[in-house]
Amino acid sequence: MLCQHSSSIILTNLAAPIMPITIPFVHRENPQAQAGWLDALRSAMPDYKLCDLADLSVNERASIDVAIVADPDPSDLATLPNLKWVHSLWAGVERMVAERPDNDLAIVRLIDPRMAESMSEAVLAWTLYLHRDMPHYRQQQDRKLWESHQLPLPSERTIGILGLGALGQRCAIRLKDNGFNTVGWNRTGRMLEGIETFSGPDGLTEMLAHTNVLVVLLPLTVETRGLLDTHRLSQLPAGASLINFARGPIIDDKALLTHLDTGHLAHAVLDVFDQEPLPTDNPFWTHPSVTVLPHISGPTNRTTASAIVATNIEAYVTNGTIPPSVDRKTGY
Amino acid sequence: MLCQHSSSIILTNLAAPIMPITIPFVHRENPQAQAGWLDALRSAMPDYKLCDLADLSVNERASIDVAIVADPDPSDLATLPNLKWVHSLWAGVERMVAERPDNDLAIVRLIDPRMAESMSEAVLAWTLYLHRDMPHYRQQQDRKLWESHQLPLPSERTIGILGLGALGQRCAIRLKDNGFNTVGWNRTGRMLEGIETFSGPDGLTEMLAHTNVLVVLLPLTVETRGLLDTHRLSQLPAGASLINFARGPIIDDKALLTHLDTGHLAHAVLDVFDQEPLPTDNPFWTHPSVTVLPHISGPTNRTTASAIVATNIEAYVTNGTIPPSVDRKTGY
Repeated sequence: MLCQHSSSIILTNLAAPIMPITIPFVHRENPQAQAGWLDALRSAMPDYKLCDLADLSVNERASIDVAIVADPDPSDLATLPNLKWVHSLWAGVERMVAERPDNDLAIVRLIDPRMAESMSEAVLAWTLYLHRDMPHYRQQQDRKLWESHQLPLPSERTIGILGLGALGQRCAIRLKDNGFNTVGWNRTGRMLEGIETFSGPDGLTEMLAHTNVLVVLLPLTVETRGLLDTHRLSQLPAGASLINFARGPIIDDKALLTHLDTGHLAHAVLDVFDQEPLPTDNPFWTHPSVTVLPHISGPTNRTTASAIVATNIEAYVTNGTIPPSVDRKTGY
Repeated sequence: MLCQHSSSIILTNLAAPIMPITIPFVHRENPQAQAGWLDALRSAMPDYKLCDLADLSVNERASIDVAIVADPDPSDLATLPNLKWVHSLWAGVERMVAERPDNDLAIVRLIDPRMAESMSEAVLAWTLYLHRDMPHYRQQQDRKLWESHQLPLPSERTIGILGLGALGQRCAIRLKDNGFNTVGWNRTGRMLEGIETFSGPDGLTEMLAHTNVLVVLLPLTVETRGLLDTHRLSQLPAGASLINFARGPIIDDKALLTHLDTGHLAHAVLDVFDQEPLPTDNPFWTHPSVTVLPHISGPTNRTTASAIVATNIEAYVTNGTIPPSVDRKTGY
């Protein structure tokens, strides 16, 4: 749901007012993305000194209690014995939760209103893509076929949002503002004003039964892994479509392919996959009813994200406040 | 911009209170569309009797002073010697204006707020299609290529609307509501609150110079025919795209193809063409930078359109009021 680059940026918390604060920085996969993050974070945090983790001695590492991370290597984190909390540059932290199950380490996710705007824009864009039959007209163009199809009013389309966190809520409101009949489902039953909200397994059955476009925005947790199996997908009405902008493993790929092949489901827009980049032999690439996107629905804006990280770190350094962190039970 | 089916529906204006009012109906191309219109109009106008023009005698035709039409055959209209005005089911009436240049016949265009909603939805949908690089990601999928591209903020994209009539205004506001930097141009210089508005030839030059996506919503008139020639298209910045949801002849097709081939223009979404259906040997069908749509951007909703026609006809029958009609000088 966020940036695709694995990396860790480590930040020391030196209270010493005279020395510049050293910030270790771990580079793993994509040098360009790392450099971009480093630039953005340095601009947002001029009083801190960002550096590569490799540049820190064992003694220096012992003094670190907070780190900035993006899908970090657990063996790197393990070299920081006194780490109290990490600030993730990603919203999705399921891998870190799995790799660092210890309750002692607080994991803070990035919650950036700008990201919610970008994600809601993507949900609106690809909902309109399905609503306006763009995949179908594209296929007609390939066959030089001039044929128009009935266009329902947006109020006649029910869009079901799975997951009503910060992102899901903004998406639901934006779809509603653009005329769609929008409903939502979440685990807790928390209501969202103006949006019909369902919860629990029975609520999911009820919502799926009248959803024309299902938008998946759930975090990946023990409860959501494989949630959309063949049973759940069959609860959607014939001709429904699906957008997954959350995490690949929430959907059973084989079940999805079967429902697309039988025509029970009309189309799937997939931005996330079990394995990324999507392997070239994966059948999704060439399926006529699948739109494959390279994990681009909700890109992190480095400038706004760095400003949020800077504010949170500053508050911690100043008065020891750690922002709300991931609940180890629910996984988000 | 409206429905694609040529037809004429003729309505008598019999003041006699006892006899049911006879409504002649002319069917030309598409029986299904004609039947659909007839049903919708009959539901909206239960006190009138719709019928085929062919069912009317010469004497009956002489009594008719108002007709409901949709791209009518001029030879059919010529059989109604006392016709005072026609109510078009289409918003685009350039063909009728050319074929019936007599000032005596008032041509009333359909102005349906529901149509403005549908058109603005299409403009938003295909603007997001371009903004979110959907044509590019589609081509990447064909090559099994996993590669993400920089996404500008919508406020960093300038959308220029050519034509700020009822449709253009609604589109401009809707794009602005969804975060795009939206500007507009019209002939008269009429301003639109909250939207930077340009007018005249110099104003067009100024607007084109900083437009990233040009949306064409002008009526086809003597002044707009061929307006977007190679000179005008070259005034757009490199990498700009274009959406034509108005009429084909407003754009010089050869000039457009040249600018797409050189890469000066990135993409064109075309819903309207000089000849429709688009002939199979037209190069637009297979051009990698062109999205061909079969005239579906702003479909008429028969139910809401019929209600508007019914209200206008009723006002005329009751007190002789004819709604504002097309200005023969400007052509719209």
